[in-house]
Amino acid sequence: MSPERLAIHTFTNKPWSIRECIENYARRGVGGISIWRETVAGQDLKAVGRQLDDSGLVPVSLVRGGFFTGKDSPTREAAIATNREAIVEAEALKLPMIVLVCGATLGQTPEENLDQIREGIAAVLPQAESAGIRLAIEPLHPMYAGDRSAVASMRDANDLAESLNHPLVGVALDVFHVWWETGLEAQIERCAAADRLFAFHVCEFKPDFDHVLLDRGLPGEGVNASARIARMVQAAGFTGLTEVEIFSRKYWAENQHDFLEKIITSCAPL
Amino acid sequence: MSPERLAIHTFTNKPWSIRECIENYARRGVGGISIWRETVAGQDLKAVGRQLDDSGLVPVSLVRGGFFTGKDSPTREAAIATNREAIVEAEALKLPMIVLVCGATLGQTPEENLDQIREGIAAVLPQAESAGIRLAIEPLHPMYAGDRSAVASMRDANDLAESLNHPLVGVALDVFHVWWETGLEAQIERCAAADRLFAFHVCEFKPDFDHVLLDRGLPGEGVNASARIARMVQAAGFTGLTEVEIFSRKYWAENQHDFLEKIITSCAPL
Repeated sequence: MSPERLAIHTFTNKPWSIRECIENYARRGVGGISIWRETVAGQDLKAVGRQLDDSGLVPVSLVRGGFFTGKDSPTREAAIATNREAIVEAEALKLPMIVLVCGATLGQTPEENLDQIREGIAAVLPQAESAGIRLAIEPLHPMYAGDRSAVASMRDANDLAESLNHPLVGVALDVFHVWWETGLEAQIERCAAADRLFAFHVCEFKPDFDHVLLDRGLPGEGVNASARIARMVQAAGFTGLTEVEIFSRKYWAENQHDFLEKIITSCAPL
Repeated sequence: MSPERLAIHTFTNKPWSIRECIENYARRGVGGISIWRETVAGQDLKAVGRQLDDSGLVPVSLVRGGFFTGKDSPTREAAIATNREAIVEAEALKLPMIVLVCGATLGQTPEENLDQIREGIAAVLPQAESAGIRLAIEPLHPMYAGDRSAVASMRDANDLAESLNHPLVGVALDVFHVWWETGLEAQIERCAAADRLFAFHVCEFKPDFDHVLLDRGLPGEGVNASARIARMVQAAGFTGLTEVEIFSRKYWAENQHDFLEKIITSCAPL
């Protein structure tokens, strides 16, 4: 696809400030942007919002809310408060969606984590409704199921969204996290049929990764699942921008303009 | 559980030779042994078999067959030949079961891999029947689904075993690989109800692992799922020995007698 069908996550170009991300994406003809809370921490959100308006970039997602689990009630309440702040930020930046990395606490069972996640999302839903902000549950690869997300497959994400059954609660599918899943096509169809396929992220899993978080690949690298899954998502009727979310110490060490070109080239066949 | 309810995989004590494994497990009152092909490579299998007979250890599994996938037919035929050799070795060592790490080839879809795995197992089944050797499909954690096993959950393993529908084809459940799976208890019950729960391995996943293969934990470390899953397996009627299969550069650097004591202590609460 052409650059105007892409939205890039600011964390993909971690060395760039929010101003540089907006400028460079717009200049290169990228269609949209998803903004990491880390990238705008301490910034004047109104000024960022004005720059974003002027840029013509489509605002896609605020990344990220979630982390709803915890051993005790004060911890979980604090997480809910943080998610409420994220909704305020998303409103300020006119981002219509928040991606949720739902959380997992070491020593809790998947079921305990999922119950706490369900309660956390339900607790912030009234404010999301007032703001008109969509909440996208992102299933994470099971290598993160111990401490980042008990939602570890599209099947899990669909089950969770279905149990909450709210038009503002859907799913953000990231190739990096679900390429391994058997029956994936059926889960994507199930998600889309329920109007819950809110977002599609590309990023490749490299079986020989040298860091559990920060060695991710461009479309075509590693297990090379982006094109296959893009076809499934398109066949299921997804028409949103394709988001590029890649964490990589290797690519962060390069000139970020060169990396942006590599992103655009690698996404062209999708 | 007490040591006589445990069987230890020789690769757990990688610094030990097969003779040292047999001697030290038997001396310490461990109940059984699973033998890695790497540990007996180049050895006189008849002599190993005699030592094993004399030791009183219960022979549990030969580890491991599988790796049935490949881009071309000669590669897959070679894998089938290797599995036939493994059956001969298992017979020589009087090991009644072979654990299968089923395989995955970079760039193939999960479905392509699974079709090739199904064909590979079907191809070696006649010889397994003649030898009376059971084949235990081990689902691997999805972080290995790109290049080691497309069978990435208990659900996948059950589906595959069910499709082969043969009394010699079952499942080896390893805590390290499936602790994250939602609906795990139902999949364990499904497996046991079909008489397919052939083996149970303990080993913990550490979310902060420093090596994708060789930084595994003792029961109680990391996500601490061994006790929880042991209860499920016991409730489902599993009565075999509990196998200890831990790869760890950290523990391999220690005195292996001390490591064996840690294993026995950490398995006591199971």
